[in-house]
Amino acid sequence: MPAEIISGKKISEEIKAEIKSEVSILRARGIIPGLAAVLAGDNPASALYVKMKAKACEEVGIYSDVIAKDRSCGQSEILDLIDELNARDDIDGILVQSPLPDHLDEAAVTFEIDPGKDVDGLHPVNAGLLLAGRPAFEPATPLGILELLDRSGHNPGGKSVVILGRGRLVGRPLAVMLAHKSSKANATVTVCHTGTKDIAWHTRNADIVIAAMGKARFLTGDMIRPGAVVIDVGTNQIDDPAHLRGKRVVGDVDFESVNEVAGALTPVPGGVGPMTIASLLQNTLKACRRRHNLD
Amino acid sequence: MPAEIISGKKISEEIKAEIKSEVSILRARGIIPGLAAVLAGDNPASALYVKMKAKACEEVGIYSDVIAKDRSCGQSEILDLIDELNARDDIDGILVQSPLPDHLDEAAVTFEIDPGKDVDGLHPVNAGLLLAGRPAFEPATPLGILELLDRSGHNPGGKSVVILGRGRLVGRPLAVMLAHKSSKANATVTVCHTGTKDIAWHTRNADIVIAAMGKARFLTGDMIRPGAVVIDVGTNQIDDPAHLRGKRVVGDVDFESVNEVAGALTPVPGGVGPMTIASLLQNTLKACRRRHNLD
Repeated sequence: MPAEIISGKKISEEIKAEIKSEVSILRARGIIPGLAAVLAGDNPASALYVKMKAKACEEVGIYSDVIAKDRSCGQSEILDLIDELNARDDIDGILVQSPLPDHLDEAAVTFEIDPGKDVDGLHPVNAGLLLAGRPAFEPATPLGILELLDRSGHNPGGKSVVILGRGRLVGRPLAVMLAHKSSKANATVTVCHTGTKDIAWHTRNADIVIAAMGKARFLTGDMIRPGAVVIDVGTNQIDDPAHLRGKRVVGDVDFESVNEVAGALTPVPGGVGPMTIASLLQNTLKACRRRHNLD
Repeated sequence: MPAEIISGKKISEEIKAEIKSEVSILRARGIIPGLAAVLAGDNPASALYVKMKAKACEEVGIYSDVIAKDRSCGQSEILDLIDELNARDDIDGILVQSPLPDHLDEAAVTFEIDPGKDVDGLHPVNAGLLLAGRPAFEPATPLGILELLDRSGHNPGGKSVVILGRGRLVGRPLAVMLAHKSSKANATVTVCHTGTKDIAWHTRNADIVIAAMGKARFLTGDMIRPGAVVIDVGTNQIDDPAHLRGKRVVGDVDFESVNEVAGALTPVPGGVGPMTIASLLQNTLKACRRRHNLD
């Protein structure tokens, strides 16, 4: 029996509808949440992501300002821009689209962002508060995964969750968030990685498997227990002569074989991706409410 | 066959001897590492811990300054003191002994410490850098456990490690540190807690079990696999009429039964405790070297 397909697209639309309704209440009071997106260099994927984020803002009534800098932009110019955005009253959230051109120090740029406007949850102060279990901006992809599990009826509380991958943006913060004693978490979490001896043993014993290691179709049906819930965080381009442009995007999960064994599964695209953008909007709204002392 | 007893006391003496030798080289160049310990209120356990830390500083040639404030000390007085210590050139590391009296905001006090002098590794910036996998001051107890495993010949690389407890000071940061791709870590880490359905299943499948949940003698011999390595982070006072004062200190591990099954085991006292103090000295030396641009 094929698995239930968890539609991140559908759930993200629900979240966006909720945000839109909250934003309209704020707008009626004269408050317009605002997001600034900094795009440096000419990476086409980065340009696409920023465009998608700006479009999502528009859908829900959040003001967005995309600031494009060309490749030659220097470190002090970017830092000055961040200072300016930190000071602007119409901007509640600041995101710097990663990766920056190689000559720029991305960590220093992130550190310059006002932690109260750090809607990507990447400033060390926010990461540190997260680790300490105190209120913080949570990084968008892990936050989206918690929402996805909860809203699709697969709350992780009391479950064994195996995360594949220990990356800075997903695996590590997600492990911390899923283990917290909170209504959308409280899971028993194991993080597997390249140093793990028998990954399949771990995944076969998990109620929920989250694949976030960036290896195309790594997780196969024989690696999970029947009925397991599988979340696919991967986006890998693979060659496929049958497709337009000779390439297509696949996740870290081998969809066909896992679909035969899992109880529920997210697709790629249309799974975690749209949830990440919904989380960014949630964080921007939260930043706006905080700045106006509305919480 | 009884387990190998891993002596934290002995290993911490080795580390202190190394620090002493490094400090004497610095002193020959006119540099004296300095630690300030802030003790507020009249908690006798806190006073004892601070005394032990100051004594350890003296042993290795680190200058220490214990600043005692009485119970009535206000928030702004503590913050002013921290500012003063941040500015003092003879102070490389600042520790604020926890817990502070109830009327003080401990998180705000920690946040006031210069992250470069935060030798307890508790400032959100250091916790955030830790989570991001970037250089940071690591919290003393988890750092001591990594050293203990490595120096006792039980390096956790490639091993399955189960941590019992998700506390702010040990469980959570330790899980992050043990999963890092580094020579003293690279383990496959699972964190169990009150929300875990079958803790014994997890511990029986682990190569290394670290008990840090603060329940006296919780981990028993039937909960581990033969030959497992067991680290006991607990310090619990229990009633014992046979003992002087009618009380004694036990760990989170049931020493007698685990000793019959484990391959190696830390005692309480004399296990993780002395390692925590050694880590504080290591961090103070590191802070001093950084402030003088010696690394």
